[in-house]
Amino acid sequence: MTTGKKGRFITVEGGEGAGKSTIIARLYEELRKRGMDVLLTREPGGIEIAEQIREIILNPAHTQMDKRTEALLYAAARSQHLAEKVLPALEAGKLVLCDRFIDSSLAYQGHARGLGIDEVYAINKFAVGDCMPELTLFFDVQPEVGLARINAARGREVNRLDLEGMRFHELVREGYQLAIARDPERFVMIDAGQSEEQVYADALAALTARL
Amino acid sequence: MTTGKKGRFITVEGGEGAGKSTIIARLYEELRKRGMDVLLTREPGGIEIAEQIREIILNPAHTQMDKRTEALLYAAARSQHLAEKVLPALEAGKLVLCDRFIDSSLAYQGHARGLGIDEVYAINKFAVGDCMPELTLFFDVQPEVGLARINAARGREVNRLDLEGMRFHELVREGYQLAIARDPERFVMIDAGQSEEQVYADALAALTARL
Repeated sequence: MTTGKKGRFITVEGGEGAGKSTIIARLYEELRKRGMDVLLTREPGGIEIAEQIREIILNPAHTQMDKRTEALLYAAARSQHLAEKVLPALEAGKLVLCDRFIDSSLAYQGHARGLGIDEVYAINKFAVGDCMPELTLFFDVQPEVGLARINAARGREVNRLDLEGMRFHELVREGYQLAIARDPERFVMIDAGQSEEQVYADALAALTARL
Repeated sequence: MTTGKKGRFITVEGGEGAGKSTIIARLYEELRKRGMDVLLTREPGGIEIAEQIREIILNPAHTQMDKRTEALLYAAARSQHLAEKVLPALEAGKLVLCDRFIDSSLAYQGHARGLGIDEVYAINKFAVGDCMPELTLFFDVQPEVGLARINAARGREVNRLDLEGMRFHELVREGYQLAIARDPERFVMIDAGQSEEQVYADALAALTARL
């Protein structure tokens, strides 16, 4: 996918319960207050085709879902969300903040599900072409801390991924570390085990340092 | 995808109107008459997850479908159909006859839609692992002959792909030629411009020569 993009593309990554969705919403508000033209999004992001793909992935009835199928579906939803939402925003000169992107697939499907990080990178490279983020904030948290936060949260629908055990979340964290090792200059690591205020302050500092 | 397969995996390919679905049904009946344990299938093949993926691909409302998304969705449906239907049949020692497989993606998405045959091969290799067909019958027909047959046929729902023009079908044929050039020993070319009886006789001869 080639684009004459003028905007800036930044992604946020982390395991379950790392608090990244809360923090990214605050970053979005702060950057807007500063007068920046920002798009906050996450796959499938209201894009009809991507939403339908995501429904297939998360449907709890789909117990027969092959892990390769799952990885290909995530890549397909990514490609469509990128084409319909991210690329037009970048071309309009916006700053795009995306909650999860290619590194989630490397960590979850590539490492935790054992498909291989290189193999999952290949299908995702097909999906995203040259549209890689220039900066990725990685919210690092110990799996037990993350899961405790999830259990404490209310009103959140439990999906198939949530049902996987602690070992899976440890593998996800390991997978992120491997993804970071592939492309270290793109990442800033944020200690997400701290208080929300401190995590937010660290994330904002990392973001503004790069902008 | 690794399998201790004992069966045999054979695919049939060709452009629109090449008559391959008619011929493959007759081959299936003939092999069964000869006492072979045969599975005749085509993606999505009644596999729920693959059927849902195919619905997203063919929905005429999805005019915004990105061509990379489409290619990834075909690969995803392929992976699921393989995992739930083809591999279990091969492991049970069956002969599996599959109407379209990886080469359709190389010809349609890789060449005709311009995504690149190598790129589309990479995502399909992810989908199928080591489960490649040992023999592929390619039903070759001139695009104008194929389309005339389609227009003459009745009671067939017109889908999004049918609406593409003649140039597209010429590119598909060219794409198949390139796919064959990558792996010539796997293919037998059948002249599908002949009468149905002659096409069937040629296909049966090619198949039985290999079995």
